[in-house]
Amino acid sequence: MRADECRPIDVKPLWTAITAVRDKAPLIHNITNFVVMNNTANALLAIGASPAMIHSADEVEDFVAISQALVVNIGTLDSGLIAACKLAVMRASAVGVPWILDPVGAGATPYRRLAADVLSRLKPAVIRGNGSEILTLAQQAGEGRGVDSLHGAETALVAAQRLAKNTGAVVAVTGAVDYVTDGARIIAIHNGHPLMARVTGLGCSATAVIGAFLGVESNAFTATMAALTLFGVAGEIAAEQSPGPGTLQVALLDMLYTLKESIFSQRALVKPYFIK
Amino acid sequence: MRADECRPIDVKPLWTAITAVRDKAPLIHNITNFVVMNNTANALLAIGASPAMIHSADEVEDFVAISQALVVNIGTLDSGLIAACKLAVMRASAVGVPWILDPVGAGATPYRRLAADVLSRLKPAVIRGNGSEILTLAQQAGEGRGVDSLHGAETALVAAQRLAKNTGAVVAVTGAVDYVTDGARIIAIHNGHPLMARVTGLGCSATAVIGAFLGVESNAFTATMAALTLFGVAGEIAAEQSPGPGTLQVALLDMLYTLKESIFSQRALVKPYFIK
Amino acid sequence: MRADECRPIDVKPLWTAITAVRDKAPLIHNITNFVVMNNTANALLAIGASPAMIHSADEVEDFVAISQALVVNIGTLDSGLIAACKLAVMRASAVGVPWILDPVGAGATPYRRLAADVLSRLKPAVIRGNGSEILTLAQQAGEGRGVDSLHGAETALVAAQRLAKNTGAVVAVTGAVDYVTDGARIIAIHNGHPLMARVTGLGCSATAVIGAFLGVESNAFTATMAALTLFGVAGEIAAEQSPGPGTLQVALLDMLYTLKESIFSQRALVKPYFIK
Repeated sequence: MRADECRPIDVKPLWTAITAVRDKAPLIHNITNFVVMNNTANALLAIGASPAMIHSADEVEDFVAISQALVVNIGTLDSGLIAACKLAVMRASAVGVPWILDPVGAGATPYRRLAADVLSRLKPAVIRGNGSEILTLAQQAGEGRGVDSLHGAETALVAAQRLAKNTGAVVAVTGAVDYVTDGARIIAIHNGHPLMARVTGLGCSATAVIGAFLGVESNAFTATMAALTLFGVAGEIAAEQSPGPGTLQVALLDMLYTLKESIFSQRALVKPYFIK
Repeated sequence: MRADECRPIDVKPLWTAITAVRDKAPLIHNITNFVVMNNTANALLAIGASPAMIHSADEVEDFVAISQALVVNIGTLDSGLIAACKLAVMRASAVGVPWILDPVGAGATPYRRLAADVLSRLKPAVIRGNGSEILTLAQQAGEGRGVDSLHGAETALVAAQRLAKNTGAVVAVTGAVDYVTDGARIIAIHNGHPLMARVTGLGCSATAVIGAFLGVESNAFTATMAALTLFGVAGEIAAEQSPGPGTLQVALLDMLYTLKESIFSQRALVKPYFIK
Repeated sequence: MRADECRPIDVKPLWTAITAVRDKAPLIHNITNFVVMNNTANALLAIGASPAMIHSADEVEDFVAISQALVVNIGTLDSGLIAACKLAVMRASAVGVPWILDPVGAGATPYRRLAADVLSRLKPAVIRGNGSEILTLAQQAGEGRGVDSLHGAETALVAAQRLAKNTGAVVAVTGAVDYVTDGARIIAIHNGHPLMARVTGLGCSATAVIGAFLGVESNAFTATMAALTLFGVAGEIAAEQSPGPGTLQVALLDMLYTLKESIFSQRALVKPYFIK
């Protein structure tokens, strides 16, 4: 069966999660990179969450324990940040706070690959990356079988399923189409816009937004679908109104803040996906 | 007497201070958090000041000595930053450069509470925080008498007065209404807009703007009133023009840059306030 | 001959370089300051380059080797950052990756002056700064002859020529008019707008944009001219449409992304310059 032959899934439960974030204003602890801290915080505020950016090893354990979810992003990692991430993640696990891993640039250097790999084994609820980041992680976490003979999105999806099985995390592979898998089923989100790739840190913001949904929705698969669909719908509307990436960044925050259910339901396009 | 029965104070001296910042372009040394560095620098540029973000312990003492004021913000503190803050503050005191403390999230962790408390005792000219940050600091700096029996803004104001008396600083408590006290009198600034809470770092930017005014106005009470009134007026005009928080952030910078005396005088609403 | 008597140079080769960046999407490694990371990344994305912000000493050597160019900016330097810069620069030289130095605030403190001086001696392809930064560097790198008897832009230009000769770098002095020299010839770029000085980090963004051009154009003089002319033209169009610095920042990114050859050719004003 071809992906586009699948019927779209009902997005009402996704809107329920969106409303829950707005109503409950979950406190989201972010250990994230210096490039996107500001945008990430603003994206979280726009959807109704309450962000905090706290990365000192001296306080991350205390802070994560009073948060509803934790976002770990290795964009501008160094040894201090990795230590803080590990401490926060272990405390999060101990007190039952869900967390999401964004393995930014996982394959770019050996140092980064190692850091992403170690963190991915510490029981994140969700891992979100682009195709190449997920491929990198899956090759390490997996049984060593290369996925190089496969191609493009399909390749990344096989890797994502394997990574999900090996880590227990829901895995999201974002790109022109966003995919979410728990190792068994895959859903595809056909929202978003190519101009979004010209704004720095929108992938990181998407990760943070998933974090906010983890703070109000205990089903990590639903949380991830809801977050990515919201982000994609808001992003595509914002992009359609924007002459370039500067305006897009501004319009995206406005749209995350103002988006109404009627527009969301009309735009959201989420379908089951089956590897051919 | 009820607060709303008080007659507004004359805001001409506040406009004089605003003009002084624009004319003198004071050099403002910021040791601030990574989330808001960019916005803070842009807010300072928009009002006519000259910002520098410098936080290495190897140079803060040299740099603060050539600055007109110092802004210390503990948003993303770590041990290196605390050391740099202490060095800068001690040098600032030695050479007569006024400084302002923003005790971001003071109550969130023991580490943060301690850092904020230690800094508050090093003779800041101004401390600006939200109600809960000021309450945290006041409970530590004070004689141990709880303020828990009081409520809301009034509670924070009693704490702010105590903190002002104990530290010698002018204390600003910002929120829906901004309050400024020197321990005796209190003034209330009825400007601003609820949408401002959906943009990250506007409190931090307000702190930096107060810092700029400290660089040109030796009366810290007047400097703080002028800065917060400017910020509130610019913010409310910007918010009224904005569909969401993305646009607000952009419009606020435009408005800080273009605001004219006639609009300022018409909008500014500053009143003496008396605790009931 | 007076500068304004010179005939403008043909800007077609500059547009060729602009097209090359858009077509080749060079990967640009940035070790830059925390204030401007986001804007810098967005400026690079808007012109079609692929930015990465990576500053840990544990991975800069690996990453620079897979990049097309390296940008080194000392805005928020500390001892860790200086070490990372040196490691990255030495590896860049070893593998033939061109790099550009932005000596932010070089003269502000002894620590900063030393760091800028040491880096300037490690064979950057380009150095970009404002007049006072270039004067500071030239006085250290040079033979000790003061340039204090000269004045204003001319003073900085004599310093820039000397710095170019001593370091082997193309030197750009940006301001109301931007100048580029290789030690012998000087060209002047008469684009840009005064409002650009009210947005933080546009100098840093200009440096990063030069970095992107170094990634596709082996002639550093042409790369620097093309980058600064693009930035100046995009900036002046953006500023003309902007009520204040907030809007300018947004409009600049839009314009860098959408600028067409016809507008560029019509606006670009690049002339040979001769010191009087």
